[in-house]
Amino acid sequence: MQFFSSDFKLGILGGGQLGKMMLYETRKWDIYTKVMDASPEAPCKIACNEFVEGSLMDFDAVYNFGKDVDVLTIEIENVNLDAMEKLEHEGITVYPPTKTLRTIQNKATQKLFYTDHGIPTSSFTRFAYTSEIEDSISNGGLQLPFVWKSAQFGYDGQGVKVVRKMDDLKGLPNVECIAENLVDFKNELAVIVARSSTGEIKTYPVVEMEFHPEANQVEYVICPARIDDAVAQKAKDVALKVSEHMKHVGLLAVELFQTHNDEILVNEVAPRPHNSGHYSIEASYTNQFEQHIRAILGLPLGKTDSKVAGIMVNLVGAEGHTGDVVYENIASILEMDGVTPHIYGKRQTRPFRKMGHVTIVDEDMTRAREVAQKVKETIKVMTNK
Amino acid sequence: MQFFSSDFKLGILGGGQLGKMMLYETRKWDIYTKVMDASPEAPCKIACNEFVEGSLMDFDAVYNFGKDVDVLTIEIENVNLDAMEKLEHEGITVYPPTKTLRTIQNKATQKLFYTDHGIPTSSFTRFAYTSEIEDSISNGGLQLPFVWKSAQFGYDGQGVKVVRKMDDLKGLPNVECIAENLVDFKNELAVIVARSSTGEIKTYPVVEMEFHPEANQVEYVICPARIDDAVAQKAKDVALKVSEHMKHVGLLAVELFQTHNDEILVNEVAPRPHNSGHYSIEASYTNQFEQHIRAILGLPLGKTDSKVAGIMVNLVGAEGHTGDVVYENIASILEMDGVTPHIYGKRQTRPFRKMGHVTIVDEDMTRAREVAQKVKETIKVMTNK
Repeated sequence: MQFFSSDFKLGILGGGQLGKMMLYETRKWDIYTKVMDASPEAPCKIACNEFVEGSLMDFDAVYNFGKDVDVLTIEIENVNLDAMEKLEHEGITVYPPTKTLRTIQNKATQKLFYTDHGIPTSSFTRFAYTSEIEDSISNGGLQLPFVWKSAQFGYDGQGVKVVRKMDDLKGLPNVECIAENLVDFKNELAVIVARSSTGEIKTYPVVEMEFHPEANQVEYVICPARIDDAVAQKAKDVALKVSEHMKHVGLLAVELFQTHNDEILVNEVAPRPHNSGHYSIEASYTNQFEQHIRAILGLPLGKTDSKVAGIMVNLVGAEGHTGDVVYENIASILEMDGVTPHIYGKRQTRPFRKMGHVTIVDEDMTRAREVAQKVKETIKVMTNK
Repeated sequence: MQFFSSDFKLGILGGGQLGKMMLYETRKWDIYTKVMDASPEAPCKIACNEFVEGSLMDFDAVYNFGKDVDVLTIEIENVNLDAMEKLEHEGITVYPPTKTLRTIQNKATQKLFYTDHGIPTSSFTRFAYTSEIEDSISNGGLQLPFVWKSAQFGYDGQGVKVVRKMDDLKGLPNVECIAENLVDFKNELAVIVARSSTGEIKTYPVVEMEFHPEANQVEYVICPARIDDAVAQKAKDVALKVSEHMKHVGLLAVELFQTHNDEILVNEVAPRPHNSGHYSIEASYTNQFEQHIRAILGLPLGKTDSKVAGIMVNLVGAEGHTGDVVYENIASILEMDGVTPHIYGKRQTRPFRKMGHVTIVDEDMTRAREVAQKVKETIKVMTNK
C-alpha cells in the first residue's frame, strides 16, 4: 500500500499538541490526514488536510469521523471505544486496537491487567464507589496513606489525589476508583516501546524524571536516565513485558517507579506519543511521532538511539498570572547552545497550565543538565501585567 | 516584540517546498503566517494560517499581500521587487532587503557585484541580447566554450546552457545574458551564512556536492565537505565576504567552485534556505529553516554545528515515468539506520522532476556515505505502469 502522496487517509482522534507534532511527520511524508477535536481552536486545525469539529466521547461523532479513513489512530486515550470497536468490526484499521484502549482507559482494569500478567505494580484495592473507602479504613481493610484514583478518565484535575488523612477524602467524586499503595520511590522512569503492526518491536532508552525538591513536580525529563545499566535493563524488560501482553500497535509509553531497593514497578501506561518522549524530536535518530506513524502503517521501525544527550523542560504558566500569554526572556534561552523551545500556541496562560516545552541537547549530559537549569531559571510564562 | 502566540504576522512569498519546511518552524513556535503562491496546490496551502492565491511577479498581488504583515520574507527570489520596495518604503520590514534581491535577481548584476567588491568569481562577458554573442565570437572577443546564462529568471529549464560550438546557441532566447568562463573545478562547495537583523553572523560547515561520474548531476550533498581545513576556511572567508557586502538579512547560501589549484570562486548565491542545507534538519543543532526565522526576527542565531555527519540525496523522477507517482522500495530505505525521506507531495512525477529528498545521518561519515549510496540505488520514483 502506498501512503505517500496517494489516496490513503489517516484519521487522528484528538487535535491537541501531540497531534500537532504528529502532523509534522505526516507533512514530511505527505500523508493525507483527517483530524477530529471538540475545540475549533485545536492546534491541529491547520496542518491537517481535513478537520472535523466533534466530541471524542460521542459515539456518532467518532463513528462518522472514522468511516472513511484507512487507518484510525489517537493522540489521547479518552475516546468513545464503542464507536471505535464498531469501526474495527466494519474493517477500518484501528491502532492502537480498541482492546488495548479498553484495558488502559479504566484504571482499575489496567491495574488488574498488571497483576493478572505478573507485571510488578504497587498493590491496590478496587472500589465501586469512593464512599466505600471510609468503611474499609475503619474496619482495618485499608491503611492510610494511599493514592486515590478515579477509574474512569475525565474528572479534570481531580482524577488523582494523595490521601493522608480521612479529611482528604472530602470532596472526591463518588465514583468507581482504586486506592493505591503510596510508593516511596528513588526515581520515576519511563520507557517508550514501539510495536509495529508487523510485530516488530523497539525500545527507546530509559528516561528519568527529575523532580523539584520542594514542589513535588516533574522538572526535567532526562535521556538517557542517570542509572545503573542493570536497573535500566530491568526497566526495559518490564516495559517489554507490558508491551508484549498489551499487544498494542504504535507507541506504548510505560511509566515506572524505581524503589529504594531497585525494584521496578509499573505506574501507568499511555498507548501513544508521550511527554516523556518529546526530547526525541531533537535528540533521537527517529523521533517518537515518526516512530508512531511507522508503527501503525506497518513500516520498518526507525533507530531509537540518541544522537546526543537530551533533556526536556515543561513550560508551565507562572503563578499569579492569568490572561494573554507572554514568554518572558525567550530570546535569552535562544542564545544558549542546543536549546529549542516548542510553543503550544495557547493564547491564554494560567498558573501551572502546560504552555509548551523546551528541549536541551548536548554531546555532554552534565553540560546539558546545566543548560537545562539555566533555561528553567530564565524563561517565564506570564502575562503583561 | 512578541512573536510567539501573539498578533505578530509573518508573510512568506512562495508556498513551495522551502516554505513548507519553514512552516514546521513557525508551527513549532506558533508564529502566525500568511503565505502567497500562484498555485492552489501549493504545499504551503495547509500549515499556514492564511493562504493567498496570487502571482509572485504581479505588482498588485505582492503589494496587497504584504500590506498587513509585520515582516515579509521569501522562499524564492523570483518575486516582484517594485512591490516589495514600495512595502519597504511604507514601513513593512522586508527581509532579505529588496536591495539584496535586486543584486541577486539579475545574474549580470550579481556577477558585476562580485567583481566590484573583489570577490573571486569566473570571468564573464555581459550581452544586451543573445544575438550579439555570435559577432563577439567571430571577431575574437569571446572564446568557446562558455556557459550562457540569461540575466533574468523565469526561462524555465532554459536559463543556463553550456555552449561548446556555435550550433549550441541555436534556440536560446534572445535576451539580456552573460557568457561565463567554463570553470574546470575539482569540487563544488556551498556555505550557508546566517545574518540576523541585529548584525549577528554565523556560518554553517562547508558542504560538498558530489557529482555522478557520467551524468553531470549532483548526487549527494555531504556535510562536512571532505576537504582540507585550509580550503574549508578559505571557502568560509569568501562566503563571509559576500555576506558582508550583500548586507542580506536571513540566510545566504553561497555556491562555490574549488578549482584544481584550490582557488575558491563564487558561482552564485541564494538569499534563503537552500537545497544544500536540507541535511541540517536531521544533522544540525539548528536547522536552516529555524535559523532563517531567527535571523529575520532579530532573535539570537542558533548553534550551526552538526550533531552527526549528514548526507542529502535528491529524489528525482525516474526516466520513462510520467504520471501518478509511486515511491518504489521506500520501505526498504526506512529499514536503514538514520534514513529520513522527505516527500514533497507532488502527485505527478516526470523524468528528473524533484519529488523530494532523503537525509542520511550517522556518527561516522564513511558509513553515512555507504548508506547514502544504498539509498540511491534502492528507492525509485516512478509510476505504476
